[in-house]
Amino acid sequence: MYDVEAIRGDFPILSREVNGKPLVYLDNGASAQKPQVVIDAITRAYAEEYANVHRGLHYLSNLATEKYESVRGTVARFLNAASEDEIVMNSGTTEGINLVAYSWAMPRFEPGDEIVLSVMEHHANIVPWHFLRERQGAVLKWVDVDETGALDPQKVIDAIGPKTKLVAVTHLSNVLGTRVDVKTITEGAHAKGVPVLVDGSQAAVHMPVDVQDIGCDFYAITGHKLYGPSGSGAIYIRRERMDEMRPFIGGGDMIREVHKDEVTYADPPMRFEAGTPGIVQQIGLGVALDYMMGLGMENIAAHEERLRDYTRSKLDGLNWIQVQGTTRDKAAIFSFTMDGAAHAHDISTILDKKGVAVRAGQHCTGPLMDHLGLNATCRASFGLYNTEAEVDVLVDALELAHELFA
Amino acid sequence: MYDVEAIRGDFPILSREVNGKPLVYLDNGASAQKPQVVIDAITRAYAEEYANVHRGLHYLSNLATEKYESVRGTVARFLNAASEDEIVMNSGTTEGINLVAYSWAMPRFEPGDEIVLSVMEHHANIVPWHFLRERQGAVLKWVDVDETGALDPQKVIDAIGPKTKLVAVTHLSNVLGTRVDVKTITEGAHAKGVPVLVDGSQAAVHMPVDVQDIGCDFYAITGHKLYGPSGSGAIYIRRERMDEMRPFIGGGDMIREVHKDEVTYADPPMRFEAGTPGIVQQIGLGVALDYMMGLGMENIAAHEERLRDYTRSKLDGLNWIQVQGTTRDKAAIFSFTMDGAAHAHDISTILDKKGVAVRAGQHCTGPLMDHLGLNATCRASFGLYNTEAEVDVLVDALELAHELFA
Repeated sequence: MYDVEAIRGDFPILSREVNGKPLVYLDNGASAQKPQVVIDAITRAYAEEYANVHRGLHYLSNLATEKYESVRGTVARFLNAASEDEIVMNSGTTEGINLVAYSWAMPRFEPGDEIVLSVMEHHANIVPWHFLRERQGAVLKWVDVDETGALDPQKVIDAIGPKTKLVAVTHLSNVLGTRVDVKTITEGAHAKGVPVLVDGSQAAVHMPVDVQDIGCDFYAITGHKLYGPSGSGAIYIRRERMDEMRPFIGGGDMIREVHKDEVTYADPPMRFEAGTPGIVQQIGLGVALDYMMGLGMENIAAHEERLRDYTRSKLDGLNWIQVQGTTRDKAAIFSFTMDGAAHAHDISTILDKKGVAVRAGQHCTGPLMDHLGLNATCRASFGLYNTEAEVDVLVDALELAHELFA
Repeated sequence: MYDVEAIRGDFPILSREVNGKPLVYLDNGASAQKPQVVIDAITRAYAEEYANVHRGLHYLSNLATEKYESVRGTVARFLNAASEDEIVMNSGTTEGINLVAYSWAMPRFEPGDEIVLSVMEHHANIVPWHFLRERQGAVLKWVDVDETGALDPQKVIDAIGPKTKLVAVTHLSNVLGTRVDVKTITEGAHAKGVPVLVDGSQAAVHMPVDVQDIGCDFYAITGHKLYGPSGSGAIYIRRERMDEMRPFIGGGDMIREVHKDEVTYADPPMRFEAGTPGIVQQIGLGVALDYMMGLGMENIAAHEERLRDYTRSKLDGLNWIQVQGTTRDKAAIFSFTMDGAAHAHDISTILDKKGVAVRAGQHCTGPLMDHLGLNATCRASFGLYNTEAEVDVLVDALELAHELFA
């Protein structure tokens, strides 16, 4: 039994008002709110158990190290990685994908080598590859989505040619809500000898993820969307790929020995974690992932699917709203435009007056906006604590906006 | 009037016990404890005011953005930068120096080009330059310290030759406590047309810093040593240098436009801040810097100089202790070894039993350890909340260790 009201009680911010109205937080795609257990873990870490990690021998340092390092195992369980040694902890997906670009891709790309991407990637999974294009002559090969926003895995596999060195694709679109069959893509890519990076920023929030089942080489997640602290995150890297990667960020902790004329590096995953890490953020991330796993990822997914169906049925009744992304099994993420002159920013401002927080803009997906022929959309993105009653508030606020702008 | 007892009351962890003894926290060089105002700011940010920044138009997003962006100005005031546009926010010094290595140095270094370093640099200010050596044939030129641990600025300036492209030097040694005359070094380097990067990780904690007075090109600081959250930080970059830098981490927020075949980048400093930043950590950093400025950096420095003098007089009385770094104006950082077989790790373990937290090891300074002919030292590093009574506890614990191991 998924008791959403009890769950809402775990998130202190959800009881606040905005502009005199109860907060209806539908901006989860940008960042999620935090349960009290995460906030308490942060407070406890700083007020009672804080020190730097790894290099101490005193009580607090050992305690902080133990708590910090245990998160690696929590992330491994969350993603069902075979070993916690395949988890690199970092500040989020952006850093994770840049790590792959700098450490794995840059040393092995020749001019003309290709990266296959879908058109609905987030800038975090585009700009690092533009760096390879600008600096090393890599070629970005784009695979379009169909008119429902679906990505045909076979089209991705077919785009892989003899010069393709990497497939980099999202598991779930932050704009369209489209789920991507990354398992089939990985099977096809591996059959052609090409590794696959999956951007799991959104997917890991909304559904169970099993990197061994998917079979991918890289799977990036970001803590602040997973009900964890800002600046937390991790990336799963298959062991064989780790062994192929050179260091990225240089500093303490990632070395074995440093001398004037030579340096040797620590074994993975420590090789890819330089300097004092985000100690307390990662401890908070561990608590957030335990919180999600405690609710059950299947239960969260089922709840959000109910929200999706309810929202879809409501929005389908508004014939002056155009929803982008109409696949049946999409996540509860609704990007839309409105008939008339109303700009997405104006709509979001009206919604805000009613306490409804949505995002307006490009959502860091320039190529997708080009593909859709849009400058911006409004996006209502749901999380584990949202309710059907909140959908009703959203719809009422949309009707008000339509009246004002129509 | 600097009321250290009142100040200690601001730090909740300082009232705890370790191994049945009151905590004597002398591991500030590794990371500092956090005042309640910082912990409260983090709690408030998550419990009442959280959303993603920059891209929202709703109330919480605007609020979080305003709080986050105001920290840029706080850092600028803290370092006396001419403009907050010269401040890049990041996760700490390691990221800051890597940014300079990847964005400024790598595109302009030819094989044989040199970087001048002091032998007492931290690995964060060494390993990124080893990357340039390994990947691009850069040459690291090392300047030694004298037997007191002093660095003669003229020796640094003299080391600059026609192939030197950068001087990278600490402002304050994390092992020896040595203060470095980075202003004189910068004047001499600029006279030869060479930019200067200053690692301010330690210095900014212990003394007022004025980047305009120093005149340096880059000045990196790290929040967790500045009584702020883990994973917070910033780097000052002189405007002319920023204009010479290409992007480093790619993703959201640092772009102007992204299309399939082209990307354009945001103006500095945003060009160097990719993806969702460490929102709440940076808000906490701003509160920490305000807390320090509220106490007064001159007052903190004077307090720590009293602690230094008291500690020095006490340790001078222990003729079986060898302190590394004996310059008169050093900071209150004491790295030492002990006569007899006692390894630094064993000493720190004894101290820990007495509640005294010190660090043992190489302190991320491999070349300095080579220079000193040591494998490891114990380090007692003081902060704004330490007291003379704590020095006495340290000395008592050292005497116990000496009895046990002598």
